[in-house]
Amino acid sequence: MRNLDQHTITQEVIDRFADTPDPRLKEIINCLVRHLHDFARDVRLTEDEWTNGIAFLTGTGQKCDDKRQEFILLSDVLGLSMLTVAMNHAKPAECTEATVFGPFYVEGAPHYDNGGDVANGAAGEPCDVGGTVRDIAGHPIAGARIDVWQADSEGMYDVQRSELDQLQGRGVLRSDEEGAYRFHSVLPVAYPIPTDGPVGALLQATRRHPWRPAHLHFRIEAPGYETLVTHVFREGDPWLDSDAVFGVRQSLIAPWVRREDGGYALHYDFVLNRIGAPRT
Amino acid sequence: MRNLDQHTITQEVIDRFADTPDPRLKEIINCLVRHLHDFARDVRLTEDEWTNGIAFLTGTGQKCDDKRQEFILLSDVLGLSMLTVAMNHAKPAECTEATVFGPFYVEGAPHYDNGGDVANGAAGEPCDVGGTVRDIAGHPIAGARIDVWQADSEGMYDVQRSELDQLQGRGVLRSDEEGAYRFHSVLPVAYPIPTDGPVGALLQATRRHPWRPAHLHFRIEAPGYETLVTHVFREGDPWLDSDAVFGVRQSLIAPWVRREDGGYALHYDFVLNRIGAPRT
Ligand SMILES: [Fe+2]
Ligand SMILES: [Fe+2]
Repeated sequence: MRNLDQHTITQEVIDRFADTPDPRLKEIINCLVRHLHDFARDVRLTEDEWTNGIAFLTGTGQKCDDKRQEFILLSDVLGLSMLTVAMNHAKPAECTEATVFGPFYVEGAPHYDNGGDVANGAAGEPCDVGGTVRDIAGHPIAGARIDVWQADSEGMYDVQRSELDQLQGRGVLRSDEEGAYRFHSVLPVAYPIPTDGPVGALLQATRRHPWRPAHLHFRIEAPGYETLVTHVFREGDPWLDSDAVFGVRQSLIAPWVRREDGGYALHYDFVLNRIGAPRT
Repeated sequence: MRNLDQHTITQEVIDRFADTPDPRLKEIINCLVRHLHDFARDVRLTEDEWTNGIAFLTGTGQKCDDKRQEFILLSDVLGLSMLTVAMNHAKPAECTEATVFGPFYVEGAPHYDNGGDVANGAAGEPCDVGGTVRDIAGHPIAGARIDVWQADSEGMYDVQRSELDQLQGRGVLRSDEEGAYRFHSVLPVAYPIPTDGPVGALLQATRRHPWRPAHLHFRIEAPGYETLVTHVFREGDPWLDSDAVFGVRQSLIAPWVRREDGGYALHYDFVLNRIGAPRT
């Protein structure tokens, strides 16, 4: 290795990982090294650019804490999160599509009975949400665990508000015997992803806007079915065609209907994919 | 964008960066997105693997502080640092080769006159180092700024010893009118790169050893010349052919000669590349 150059170094690095016992880890690292080195050679990365890259990644890691995940945000704005979702959720067209998980899910959300007020004090226009959880043949799935989380009327998640001492705008429900779920909450609004960290600086430097169209997050889990992580997006939102994290799918857009009393209502039915079902 | 799939998403992400005003930044990001997405597709990255990757990068950033740079260490063990050095320092064969900067340089090292004791209390066998700084035609370069830094007899840099209140084993000198430099110090020994962070876990999981052959770090700066960042490696070291960070070059290996008084002596001459000189 004493005379490696910019071309021969790549195979030497790969050879150095030859004794990796886990074949999958070895495969991933080999592929990573090849693409990382090809990237550096393709752009002829300078030492100043390398230094800036190290500083960017360091700052991204240091922005993370138990309520902020800047590396997920980076993966999101680079389309890596949505690409990973797309690769891993090929399923029949009748099933509800998956989209990005995002950085705002937290463990330990309160449990609610159907009809409960998930807002739990979050500000916003009142809104009722309901629908069913079914399989591809239309049979109801009872007892599915439904996690929902959302931003408030200022586009903020509870975990972004340091003044809060309780979780708001998130909860866990169960579908009933007919596969139905329903809850009360507030109208979600479009919001910018957090721009006070390295990812915000990247968007600024590249003249990209940080906005996401209004949406509700859902995670739905039931025994025998593939866990569904998705959003429902609000029809008519101006950011639907330029979501900062590439998460919008046509099939996930639905109308929040304005009621005569001034509140809103959303009906959305989810279709889960049975584990072991044929993939398309 | 409402119907992107795992293939079409890449162009959409690149298009979203279309308004980047700095053409070089745009070029780098476009290339990064292509390789990042190709990597994910080539290995068919699963969501669990994506989650593990996010956690690894987050931990790497959080391990960094003003004395520890875990992302440089990661770049080093993946060969990216040495690749970047190799790409950016093509120069005539007579010039001293460059190698990795490493994570242990710090600003503010003490200045010494020629002959001074750079060890400044660091433990180790006594050692005298000297040589010249010249240009490619053999003319001495006077007044060159020479930064040197090294590990002690336990393979530790001063910044790794929290008990220290002074910098040890590092200093700044100037070459004299004949281009000569000399200093007293201690014998450098082979050492493992830090293994108590995510990079150590990576080496462990892939059965790679963390050792670097014994070396002195140099950074030499003189007006009109390309700044040289390099090491001198100790001839005979058992790790010369498997340096954990791929930094060894044959031309950078030199003998530390044992003297009759029990100490060691190293003679090494540096040749700087004039800025604007033809590249090879
Ligand atoms: Fe969201
Ligand atoms: Fe070193």
